[in-house]
Amino acid sequence: MKIRVGIVGYGNLGKGVENVISYNEDMELVGVFTRRDPSTIKTKTNIPAYTLEDAQNMKDDIDVMILCGGSAKDLPEQTPLFAKSFNVVDSFDTHANIPEHFKRVDDACRASNHVGIVSVGWDPGLFSLQRLYGEAILPQGNVQTFWGKGVSQGHSDAIRRVEGVKDARQYTIPIQETLDKVRSGNNSEFTAREKHLRECYVVVEDGADKKVIEETIKTMPNYFADYETIVHFISEEELQRDHQGLPHGGVVLHTANTGFDNEHKQVIEYKLDLDSNPEFTSSVLVAYARAAYRLANEKQFGCKSVFEVAPVYLHASSVEELRKKLL
Amino acid sequence: MKIRVGIVGYGNLGKGVENVISYNEDMELVGVFTRRDPSTIKTKTNIPAYTLEDAQNMKDDIDVMILCGGSAKDLPEQTPLFAKSFNVVDSFDTHANIPEHFKRVDDACRASNHVGIVSVGWDPGLFSLQRLYGEAILPQGNVQTFWGKGVSQGHSDAIRRVEGVKDARQYTIPIQETLDKVRSGNNSEFTAREKHLRECYVVVEDGADKKVIEETIKTMPNYFADYETIVHFISEEELQRDHQGLPHGGVVLHTANTGFDNEHKQVIEYKLDLDSNPEFTSSVLVAYARAAYRLANEKQFGCKSVFEVAPVYLHASSVEELRKKLL
Repeated sequence: MKIRVGIVGYGNLGKGVENVISYNEDMELVGVFTRRDPSTIKTKTNIPAYTLEDAQNMKDDIDVMILCGGSAKDLPEQTPLFAKSFNVVDSFDTHANIPEHFKRVDDACRASNHVGIVSVGWDPGLFSLQRLYGEAILPQGNVQTFWGKGVSQGHSDAIRRVEGVKDARQYTIPIQETLDKVRSGNNSEFTAREKHLRECYVVVEDGADKKVIEETIKTMPNYFADYETIVHFISEEELQRDHQGLPHGGVVLHTANTGFDNEHKQVIEYKLDLDSNPEFTSSVLVAYARAAYRLANEKQFGCKSVFEVAPVYLHASSVEELRKKLL
Repeated sequence: MKIRVGIVGYGNLGKGVENVISYNEDMELVGVFTRRDPSTIKTKTNIPAYTLEDAQNMKDDIDVMILCGGSAKDLPEQTPLFAKSFNVVDSFDTHANIPEHFKRVDDACRASNHVGIVSVGWDPGLFSLQRLYGEAILPQGNVQTFWGKGVSQGHSDAIRRVEGVKDARQYTIPIQETLDKVRSGNNSEFTAREKHLRECYVVVEDGADKKVIEETIKTMPNYFADYETIVHFISEEELQRDHQGLPHGGVVLHTANTGFDNEHKQVIEYKLDLDSNPEFTSSVLVAYARAAYRLANEKQFGCKSVFEVAPVYLHASSVEELRKKLL
């Protein structure tokens, strides 16, 4: 019997789950649950669409719900709510609020005997795992995370809120020179400006003052003021033609010295180079949906992060097979 | 109370454990157990040395034994034996024999209520974990492992067995061109010759026939015949001066495409660059010794591989702390 999966929210991430579930032969998609009118949704693979409320009548038809909404407004409400009726997986990524979100999902899961796995994806997610493995193995060392080159939705949105801006795309780019320094074992603390630069492609309204817009972007606190920021003004056609993808990626670098005289440098590097950020994040969510299903079968109820899930739960093969083939 | 650790075998790996345990404030070293006469052992940090037999009288003094012997002769015998009296961790690395070794350690652990974690290190070990996470997340993809640049002890030993050879050091070197192909998403099956080359530094006896030795090395089945092999003849002084280190490393590359039209390339790359192979392997062993101790406290007896150990068991901090700081 296949693991039956539901998708809550049909944006980029939900469509990603719909795509990547097809690579997993032990899983099948039951439906998409949406806040919109389901009759207006045409799914890519003709999976039926339902309202969020419909889900309550489908508790016996779905083994795991993958929540594909946003971390700002959707997930804080939806993940604990759906955890009352389903095993759930989400990609909640507001780092500072993870402990609080975890607690709420944990309470809901324990009260209803379900498994929740939250903050799944690549950061938080796979990058977090690398930070943990690195620190556990080389506790005397130093870990640095670099992001990009990739599109930051949050920074693109921030530019769109500037008066006179019609549309925008912001790329976060790691600074190669600093990456190389860390790679070669330099354990200094680098500033935001030393680690990343921000490149912005901006479409403006007719007659807008580009000078003012550029200045407003570059001095925006939190988002841009602490970085070297490059602003390009382009046409709507150029934005449509050259900047529709959602690539991303990054590097987690852990460096340390060992040896009785600290004479040996040890470098662990984990790098993602992703043409599609949402499709990769979806791939991680789907693997952890398998884990949630299995943990629920073992009655290991409650909320977990990627830290608490043994790797073997993610892979479709048996542990004996994995020890034989992949160890 | 600190986790009390014993070391079985005082070679490169045992000395590595002695070194890296000092970076782990929650652990302490009780002693080194050796086949040699303990009175002839002078440990680097003045840890006492004992005979292997002494260990039987120290069951209550040691929480985890780290077995630092070789995979050919020591570990198949020692790990199951010590598992009768202790929680054990080893770096058994003969891939083909792992299932059998696992079974023997598992039987010993279950009969005596201990935890064993076998085949811990970087390959098998951290590289295995990356292969598992990669395949679980992108099952439609392709994984390739490259080793080096680094010293292969097995290949160095094979050269030393050639008549007329006094000493030798063999470096395994990944072929950059193939690495770049895989990184760019080329999922072909590459041959041994396409993936690695073997560079040998050889010291010969006076009057030995270098031509015959070179030919013997290059045509040696399994070890060299399937590779491009470069042989350098050097003096004993040069070998002592330039080739005493034990660097190693490598790359696990997982590539896959996603998207309804397979239009998006996704690349996961995990890379190790190690000045000291034994000290890094020891670092991994020590982190898994912590895990073995904790699993034993939870009465999760039996043998495990890195696949079955949730990441959280490796790190000294509490899971709440880790979720807050590293997620």
